[in-house]
Amino acid sequence: MERGIYAPEHIDLADTLRAFLAENVVPNMEDWEEDGLVPRDLYRRVADLGVLGIQVPAEYGGAGESSFLFNCVVTEQIAYSRATLGSLRVHTDVVMPYVMKYATEEQRRRWLPGMASADVMTAIAMTEPGTGSDLAGMATAARRTDGGWLLNGAKTFITGGAQADLVIVVARTSRPENRRGGLSLLAVEDGAPGFTRGRMLKKLGLLTQDTSELFFDDVFVPDANLLGEEGRAFEYLAGNLAQERLSIAVNAQAQAVAALEVTTRYVREREVFGKSLSSFQNTKFVLADLETQISAGQVFVDRAIAEHERDALSAADAAKAKLFCTELQGRVVDACLQLHGGYGYTREFDICRLYADARVSRIYGGTSEVMKSIIAKSMGL
Amino acid sequence: MERGIYAPEHIDLADTLRAFLAENVVPNMEDWEEDGLVPRDLYRRVADLGVLGIQVPAEYGGAGESSFLFNCVVTEQIAYSRATLGSLRVHTDVVMPYVMKYATEEQRRRWLPGMASADVMTAIAMTEPGTGSDLAGMATAARRTDGGWLLNGAKTFITGGAQADLVIVVARTSRPENRRGGLSLLAVEDGAPGFTRGRMLKKLGLLTQDTSELFFDDVFVPDANLLGEEGRAFEYLAGNLAQERLSIAVNAQAQAVAALEVTTRYVREREVFGKSLSSFQNTKFVLADLETQISAGQVFVDRAIAEHERDALSAADAAKAKLFCTELQGRVVDACLQLHGGYGYTREFDICRLYADARVSRIYGGTSEVMKSIIAKSMGL
Amino acid sequence: MERGIYAPEHIDLADTLRAFLAENVVPNMEDWEEDGLVPRDLYRRVADLGVLGIQVPAEYGGAGESSFLFNCVVTEQIAYSRATLGSLRVHTDVVMPYVMKYATEEQRRRWLPGMASADVMTAIAMTEPGTGSDLAGMATAARRTDGGWLLNGAKTFITGGAQADLVIVVARTSRPENRRGGLSLLAVEDGAPGFTRGRMLKKLGLLTQDTSELFFDDVFVPDANLLGEEGRAFEYLAGNLAQERLSIAVNAQAQAVAALEVTTRYVREREVFGKSLSSFQNTKFVLADLETQISAGQVFVDRAIAEHERDALSAADAAKAKLFCTELQGRVVDACLQLHGGYGYTREFDICRLYADARVSRIYGGTSEVMKSIIAKSMGL
Amino acid sequence: MERGIYAPEHIDLADTLRAFLAENVVPNMEDWEEDGLVPRDLYRRVADLGVLGIQVPAEYGGAGESSFLFNCVVTEQIAYSRATLGSLRVHTDVVMPYVMKYATEEQRRRWLPGMASADVMTAIAMTEPGTGSDLAGMATAARRTDGGWLLNGAKTFITGGAQADLVIVVARTSRPENRRGGLSLLAVEDGAPGFTRGRMLKKLGLLTQDTSELFFDDVFVPDANLLGEEGRAFEYLAGNLAQERLSIAVNAQAQAVAALEVTTRYVREREVFGKSLSSFQNTKFVLADLETQISAGQVFVDRAIAEHERDALSAADAAKAKLFCTELQGRVVDACLQLHGGYGYTREFDICRLYADARVSRIYGGTSEVMKSIIAKSMGL
Repeated sequence: MERGIYAPEHIDLADTLRAFLAENVVPNMEDWEEDGLVPRDLYRRVADLGVLGIQVPAEYGGAGESSFLFNCVVTEQIAYSRATLGSLRVHTDVVMPYVMKYATEEQRRRWLPGMASADVMTAIAMTEPGTGSDLAGMATAARRTDGGWLLNGAKTFITGGAQADLVIVVARTSRPENRRGGLSLLAVEDGAPGFTRGRMLKKLGLLTQDTSELFFDDVFVPDANLLGEEGRAFEYLAGNLAQERLSIAVNAQAQAVAALEVTTRYVREREVFGKSLSSFQNTKFVLADLETQISAGQVFVDRAIAEHERDALSAADAAKAKLFCTELQGRVVDACLQLHGGYGYTREFDICRLYADARVSRIYGGTSEVMKSIIAKSMGL
Repeated sequence: MERGIYAPEHIDLADTLRAFLAENVVPNMEDWEEDGLVPRDLYRRVADLGVLGIQVPAEYGGAGESSFLFNCVVTEQIAYSRATLGSLRVHTDVVMPYVMKYATEEQRRRWLPGMASADVMTAIAMTEPGTGSDLAGMATAARRTDGGWLLNGAKTFITGGAQADLVIVVARTSRPENRRGGLSLLAVEDGAPGFTRGRMLKKLGLLTQDTSELFFDDVFVPDANLLGEEGRAFEYLAGNLAQERLSIAVNAQAQAVAALEVTTRYVREREVFGKSLSSFQNTKFVLADLETQISAGQVFVDRAIAEHERDALSAADAAKAKLFCTELQGRVVDACLQLHGGYGYTREFDICRLYADARVSRIYGGTSEVMKSIIAKSMGL
Repeated sequence: MERGIYAPEHIDLADTLRAFLAENVVPNMEDWEEDGLVPRDLYRRVADLGVLGIQVPAEYGGAGESSFLFNCVVTEQIAYSRATLGSLRVHTDVVMPYVMKYATEEQRRRWLPGMASADVMTAIAMTEPGTGSDLAGMATAARRTDGGWLLNGAKTFITGGAQADLVIVVARTSRPENRRGGLSLLAVEDGAPGFTRGRMLKKLGLLTQDTSELFFDDVFVPDANLLGEEGRAFEYLAGNLAQERLSIAVNAQAQAVAALEVTTRYVREREVFGKSLSSFQNTKFVLADLETQISAGQVFVDRAIAEHERDALSAADAAKAKLFCTELQGRVVDACLQLHGGYGYTREFDICRLYADARVSRIYGGTSEVMKSIIAKSMGL
Repeated sequence: MERGIYAPEHIDLADTLRAFLAENVVPNMEDWEEDGLVPRDLYRRVADLGVLGIQVPAEYGGAGESSFLFNCVVTEQIAYSRATLGSLRVHTDVVMPYVMKYATEEQRRRWLPGMASADVMTAIAMTEPGTGSDLAGMATAARRTDGGWLLNGAKTFITGGAQADLVIVVARTSRPENRRGGLSLLAVEDGAPGFTRGRMLKKLGLLTQDTSELFFDDVFVPDANLLGEEGRAFEYLAGNLAQERLSIAVNAQAQAVAALEVTTRYVREREVFGKSLSSFQNTKFVLADLETQISAGQVFVDRAIAEHERDALSAADAAKAKLFCTELQGRVVDACLQLHGGYGYTREFDICRLYADARVSRIYGGTSEVMKSIIAKSMGL
């Protein structure tokens, strides 16, 4: 079945990006995985393609596109190329929407041009050691001081944290009755006194995506760096969740497509016991089954994208898309690695990276268990 | 997500049918299951609603609709009502298309009005004892005689066979090199000398759908009862497979929806250990997971229907729809019955019927294994 | 791997029983399934083989064996023969232990000889409409009267209820603080005024095992028919649960073995597309996988039997055996039916009965969910 | 259930090893994973505990134990400690048996003392680039020369290859009709001219276990280094497969036990949304289910060990043990990592290592697919 959600301008972007990735990223993946991050300069080169500023209004140096379809194209092309672009997706799909929606005109002028050009790379600091995605238990706090706040606390699992020029920190600015209240978004700039970065966490996969601990010790955050209104961070974060989860679903689906593709090619080339691996009935049945599920996943996620485009994607439907596609991705990479035999276990084969990268999909942006809770609630259970 | 494939006329039909089923079918299901078939008169009353003649041209007493969407509505409403209508779907979704496509003008005048009014109920006789869906191994044969053929052989698993007025028999009329050639469609009428019906087979489910053995002992079939051209039955049968499989997918999906619905209601009402069954996390997670898969299935099957409407549904995509939806149905009814506990094992509860009926979905119209073979071939494996 | 748990006397019993079943039961299964029960006389003939009195002391007409291994042999041989013996297992494995442990000398003299000879067939009435296995919610109650109790209430899902001469009824005889207290076992005899039997429930499977509703309307139960002490029924019932669950595990495992065996034979004989079904890699892989799980299940359940023989089977280990073997049985019958194609859906093939019978294993004697709760508790969760 | 396969001497070894690992290995795991191997000296210290020479006859410096139970203890204790000991298991469980069985008296005197003391660490070189486990396709060949052979070829995936003092190379020494014939075992010593080692392969897991490519360019192998008879390597390799697979099963089972243990501890300590993670029904059900399967796996593998101890473990039963335990391990580590949430994805948590290490279990020593083929053959399919 044809996908049919993309217009020519999306396909152009896909073509451009695919060529760029093949030339500039894929050959370096192994080195960058060794380093634990991509070179800072890479973001600038991707920005030169216009990728970072797609949604940034023209007056701030971007293309002013409002459609999420471009983000989907970027996510998909990276996956199809079996590349990763460090923490790019956090910058464009997670942080950008907050700045676009909640920044003052002064902040937009200050930040957006740099975000579009990759001079200002961003991260968002939510998770704390020991709290997971439970915002209510957050300990990082900012107390009022003259002309701003003094921020104290520690954050962990911060994607892009090692290189970020601007970190949006979720901090408690008051302690109201309502446990979800009292949280604000404070923008901390690189070099702010008291702001230090811990080591990069070693992870199972996503090896070019730096993930760091961040520490805040009496960091002064001026009033001008409050993003949105004081005390409304929970609401802001919740408001973007559907898109974040859709973005994860799109990525998971594209990763699954990539895994099936490399594996279908592999089994055709590989001979075992004097026969092509693709000629075994087991190989055929396993791949046909995955292909079927992937087809269903594609139609499902495309439909969710379409709903999102007309602002009609419910929280429960976004949760379903994430749950379905990430669980699917998990099954696909596992079965595909198995068909590679011992080679699949070595990092030289793409399927190994796809397998390792996949494992976090069922966890980040809300675990599969959290998704089920959301869906159950929407069913009146 | 809204489904969006139906227009007002489809929704009208759905409403009419739902009311009819609730009043005339649901209360009698238990008796008819005991009998192993529905009363012959039921088909006439359904025909009075216009259901049997939807696709029959107006000149032969039908509504002349070409869209398959009406068939989908019928299939779904029966499933949602947790009813069955005997072998109706074979009459409308399997046999009707052959008559519409391949009958001569004379045959159309002879058969279609009765098929639309239920005066001529039909069945198609393909499977033989021991051959399954392997047409090449077919032993039922017709040899030329004056003005027609003499038909000899036995068929089994014939849905609707016990009551059919007209049976389309797949028979070997010649034995060419090409094993798939030489098969023809011969229409045998009730009462033809030498045509007898064996006992109805006892099945696990689909208890109101009569399934019979048929025997042909020198049955004379006049030339006028050859459907289509001699020797082209294989091609005719193959040509309708995508729609047949889509029809099974639509049914499987609708059955899954029905199972989830009765179960969601059940767990809300049922108390265990002093708490509502719906308040247990396991209940929520199981049902949220099913709901997610069912949502994906619905979008997938609706997309397949849309492709079919514009004549673009490939054999492989029809196979994927059947494989996905029937495997899904299997998981859904199993998990839903489990949530009913002991009650689910008694035929008084709808979930028991849904469970028993479901088991054949992964088998008829081509097993899941056959679907995988078709899909693998389409992948170049 | 050899099983190694049986001594020559068990193997003798197995041989005797196998021959008896082949001659007397297997040929009649279809008729008895139609009837919904086995002829009353069958129990007597099985009793003549000594099967009912194995554990009954010699002075009451039995063999006085204390080992549960004989029960295992009986359960297995019935399963291996793809037969069922009505409600026999309830009589020997569920009711008999209560009588053996808690009956007074007078009761033993009164009941055991008949139980060994099948003149007194028994049932136990626990479940009530709407309460499931939650004993605390039980509404059937007995109030003191002169020389006994007056029993009122209704029971459902009573295996063997249609033919039982003696029904052990769990009834509330007082209402203490402790919700589990106040229950007693009262033996009601066939013909007691006010004791009536409802219709037999139609079930998905276990078609020769009658399952009935029972009604008690001011039934007088004399003091002499109190089994054990007043108010201790909960404790008695809980005390036998490990053996009941082990018995279900043994049966589920044996049913799985039987399903694999008929299927292995079937795929060797069946030809599709001109090749033996057993020659397809998918067939081999599916059956090899089932064989592996069944081997593990056999070693596991045999170990559980051995633990039970030395009185060391914990409640959690019995729950594990039940959970493992019944879930395994579910997977096995599903995959085996699939390999039978359309034939598997007809009641003429053993796999259809094995499939239908299997579905209750994960439910009765405590659902899989209840088993998991018990196991989790034993893990300190 | 108590395991019951170990005698006091095994338990003593377990205690000694556990203490040694906790003090000497566990604290260094992170560094050694970074290095990609364990320090050479570690093997000597393990040898000092007697672990390497358990099966080596006393006259060659070992303990002369013939039981495989000691190997099982070593494998299990390493797993329970969430440690790895580089390529130790290849040395003791794979290479040692060949030397013990097929070496000449002169070879035994030359090699065994060093193997027991870790002065001679070993590896076995079977797999070649592109051939997998298909011995028939082997290209590495040795042609006769004066007093020995000249060996040419390349091997890959050689566990322990980076540090091995003695590599047993499987090479073609003749090309007979029978494709499995003509293979011999040639011992190549470190420093032999023409023998070079390639880079260490980067793998998903087993990070302290070095895995290398080895190259042989006209390497002279003297007659005295032929292990066993010329042309019988296939038979030798096949003859040890049951033990190798049992060893993998034992390891997989022990890894699963370790994963469940760390996870059970984790969920008790971890709080989410203000409640202990262990208090959620989903957590309980997931862990209870794993515990059940692990219990079955333990009984199954212990039974296989017992069969092996009395020399009665068939190839099919070894295959079943490997298939069952490695598939189980895969499910366990996946579900356990999920319960850890984001932490599970970081290499600081044991579950991450257990997850990454597990993925090769279903592949090495024969994939799950190969196991199914073996089992199917044993079933007459």
